[in-house]
Amino acid sequence: MELTGHNLIGGREVAGTREGIRAINPATGEALGPDFPGLDGAAVADACVLAWEAFREYRNSSPAVRAAFLETIADRIEALGDQLIERAMQETGLPRARLEGERGRSCNQLRLFAGVVRDGRYLDARIDPALPNRAPLPRPDLRYNLIALGPVAVFGASNFPLAFSVAGGDTASALAAGCPVVVKAHSAHPGTSELVGRAVQQAVRDCDLPDGVFALLYGAGNEIGTALVADPHIKAVGFTGSRRGGTALMQVAQNRPEPIPVYAEMSSINPVYLLPGVLSERGKAVAEAFVAAQQMGAGQFCTSPGLVLALDGEPLDAFLDHAAARIAASPCQTMLTPGIHQAFEQGLAALEAHPAVTTQARACPADGNNQCRAGLFVAAAADFLADERLAAEVFGACTLVLRCRDAAEMLQLTRALEGQLTAAIHSGAGDEALARELVGELELKVGRVLFNGFGTGVEVCQAMVHGGPFPATSDSRTTSVGAAAIQRFVRPVCYQDVPDALLPPALRQDNPLGVPRLVNCRAE
Amino acid sequence: MELTGHNLIGGREVAGTREGIRAINPATGEALGPDFPGLDGAAVADACVLAWEAFREYRNSSPAVRAAFLETIADRIEALGDQLIERAMQETGLPRARLEGERGRSCNQLRLFAGVVRDGRYLDARIDPALPNRAPLPRPDLRYNLIALGPVAVFGASNFPLAFSVAGGDTASALAAGCPVVVKAHSAHPGTSELVGRAVQQAVRDCDLPDGVFALLYGAGNEIGTALVADPHIKAVGFTGSRRGGTALMQVAQNRPEPIPVYAEMSSINPVYLLPGVLSERGKAVAEAFVAAQQMGAGQFCTSPGLVLALDGEPLDAFLDHAAARIAASPCQTMLTPGIHQAFEQGLAALEAHPAVTTQARACPADGNNQCRAGLFVAAAADFLADERLAAEVFGACTLVLRCRDAAEMLQLTRALEGQLTAAIHSGAGDEALARELVGELELKVGRVLFNGFGTGVEVCQAMVHGGPFPATSDSRTTSVGAAAIQRFVRPVCYQDVPDALLPPALRQDNPLGVPRLVNCRAE
Repeated sequence: MELTGHNLIGGREVAGTREGIRAINPATGEALGPDFPGLDGAAVADACVLAWEAFREYRNSSPAVRAAFLETIADRIEALGDQLIERAMQETGLPRARLEGERGRSCNQLRLFAGVVRDGRYLDARIDPALPNRAPLPRPDLRYNLIALGPVAVFGASNFPLAFSVAGGDTASALAAGCPVVVKAHSAHPGTSELVGRAVQQAVRDCDLPDGVFALLYGAGNEIGTALVADPHIKAVGFTGSRRGGTALMQVAQNRPEPIPVYAEMSSINPVYLLPGVLSERGKAVAEAFVAAQQMGAGQFCTSPGLVLALDGEPLDAFLDHAAARIAASPCQTMLTPGIHQAFEQGLAALEAHPAVTTQARACPADGNNQCRAGLFVAAAADFLADERLAAEVFGACTLVLRCRDAAEMLQLTRALEGQLTAAIHSGAGDEALARELVGELELKVGRVLFNGFGTGVEVCQAMVHGGPFPATSDSRTTSVGAAAIQRFVRPVCYQDVPDALLPPALRQDNPLGVPRLVNCRAE
Repeated sequence: MELTGHNLIGGREVAGTREGIRAINPATGEALGPDFPGLDGAAVADACVLAWEAFREYRNSSPAVRAAFLETIADRIEALGDQLIERAMQETGLPRARLEGERGRSCNQLRLFAGVVRDGRYLDARIDPALPNRAPLPRPDLRYNLIALGPVAVFGASNFPLAFSVAGGDTASALAAGCPVVVKAHSAHPGTSELVGRAVQQAVRDCDLPDGVFALLYGAGNEIGTALVADPHIKAVGFTGSRRGGTALMQVAQNRPEPIPVYAEMSSINPVYLLPGVLSERGKAVAEAFVAAQQMGAGQFCTSPGLVLALDGEPLDAFLDHAAARIAASPCQTMLTPGIHQAFEQGLAALEAHPAVTTQARACPADGNNQCRAGLFVAAAADFLADERLAAEVFGACTLVLRCRDAAEMLQLTRALEGQLTAAIHSGAGDEALARELVGELELKVGRVLFNGFGTGVEVCQAMVHGGPFPATSDSRTTSVGAAAIQRFVRPVCYQDVPDALLPPALRQDNPLGVPRLVNCRAE
């Protein structure tokens, strides 16, 4: 498939008229063709009108049709074959194995949501039958289910060119819910976006769905994204990226005549707790596992371990020595974009220059462009508490280790943390009491608490939460990964004494879809 | 019980230091004692700190304890006996039967949430057991449930002094979820608020819960409410009132360092569709039912029928004549406050003066203060579409009837409506095709679609939705009435490889609470 550099709107290829984007190979610095000229505002509005028109039909498509559509997207992405992997490697600097894994995960995710749609549990169908003889007043027949919100704007993320991008978790869950999707491609991987976008567009055709169900837009700067979120036909937003970008979109969405929900996944330093028992028992093994987690994907994960807390003392020193040696000897990896590399270097320079911070290790300098020189830093917990700049995320393989005087200080610091995606507790013999206290504190701070591991692997399943209190996300009530992600794009409607033939299928008396329902407060 | 005029904070009675509120009997204009001096900002912060401290314990209280607490509140409210009803009558002008019904409904609501808590389905517990042998990577043990958000600020509503006030739906659902509640009393019924507040305070003591679980604050103007929503210990807001008040709180909540969700139920004109078949078949009966619904509580319901749409023609004329005669002969009722009465009169005066609007009926003037003279007005659908002022809610017994040229214009007008709480379709022989089209449009506009009735009765049950797209509410994904209202005050947390003893009870292997769970994608 030859890349065209065109936007995909309503089943057509639309050439942009504005400034063009060109991908840059971060490993070589070379610009990659073709040029992707950006859209103007009128074309954005066209895409949104088409999405709204498609919504009227698509929201009422049967679960079987929507599930088949999601599976067809997965098939079409797989059918892109090696071209997709090679282009993504060029655009992101990520290695083949990682991208192949990410493709597998993305296709599994689409298939998971096909299952969620077929199952129908997410509709939360409830029926309170009429009680015509109830005194003093009869009860009408009341039925409840969730319906699609409307067209969703999705912003591709730089760090997951497949799993959080054109056909990633936001798109899969929105399409599953019955919402058309208008994607703003991330400017760092426009070619990968076009390939995936054309796979989705082909799946729309294969499944005979209205063209407006999917669109893919390009644009340099913020203009296109802002116009998209402000468009009256857009009813929700999915975003993964920086805190600044996410909060800017939240403002745009709140200032609309009709405010809409924004699901922005933004900023997290993912504290890791190394409790005394585990440091004594197996500090060295934990140091190795920690360095492996920190280095994964050059630390360019939302769930990368950016903060480690441990009690001060010899076991911590031994952990640090071991981790430092591993990091100093670790190979450098190419970062996703020159901008990310520059911000990473600035973040590390600020830590190196901070009077309260000791540099424990940096990876060796390497030849090549945009190389991530991983960093390990140490500070006292009290200094961290005294300077909120130390709590800012440095995106990439960078970890600050905090020496806590005692368990009380560890708990105090935990209470002072901002919201996070994950927290990991490493716990050994004798640690249970402290671990219990930490779980109680961390539940209030994070979306996922895990033991004896690191948050970098995010399983796509029923029980996953990839979310958390602000600023980890803009809406702690939701997750952007896992089956519950579909709940972001639905809202409840109650039907009172509505004739059976006019009810949504899930609420009809004979339950033609066979969805699980709560009838008279009992599960059926 | 003698009224003290004191705020209730942390189990204590706290005398305010600011300007006092006095209730006014709207039927007589007389001021009612005692004086309720308002709090200052420092006292608000105290109440929020206490709520946060209480949250740490209360959120982990067992379902049995929380359910018993909710039931004890209901018992304590009932034990207030006639004093509550008489004070509420004095403060609101509402008749005894209505207030007795509202008390029953409020207590049923508390008991419904006790059942929701005991049942545990709202926790949405999910378990994906570990798959240690999965290739290429094992799956960890992942468990998911919903936990309480944190202390909730609740604003009492003028129009439901019991059901949407100190111990109304917002408070009941927040307490059920495990969230302490800080109530800002509505200034129109401070005595009713104190009585109910002391019943709740007593229930806190009866159940040996931490004092900070409940607080009741007074204050004139917006100062106290703004301080409450801005307080960092408050994690969500429940509000029922005007569009201006609700959007102001949304702004405050969004501008916090940590934005929080606001559940504001604000503005709705609740369109009623009278289709041709029904007007021919039983126009007179529908006119009588309509006038009864319009007059209920002097129209001071969020779900009052403010807009009627019908095809122009003789059947509509007959309906209007009949409804007008009924309204002209209807007795006046006392409105809730002088402010509401004044706004009502202004709203009707604007309609009477509008060049495109015909006054079809006004109820006769009556002696007495703050009397609601119900109004019925008529305009052409095209004029309504041309002037958005005609779509503004006039709170009280006021309805604008729109003559639609044809079904297409009715549908066009429907598409142009703002979000609404309810829409009612009256449908008879031959109306099914149009009714079907309307249901499809109205699903996108409202929280509840009903047939052959009016939205004024809001059943408290599993399947109710009292919500809808903006500006009906600030968050269309939620309901403020019914079992699903609890979902506003929870968020998901995932537990990965967490030792069984440290898991929330709902997720432990032996399921000690016996809650429904999804294990390996199957309901257990």
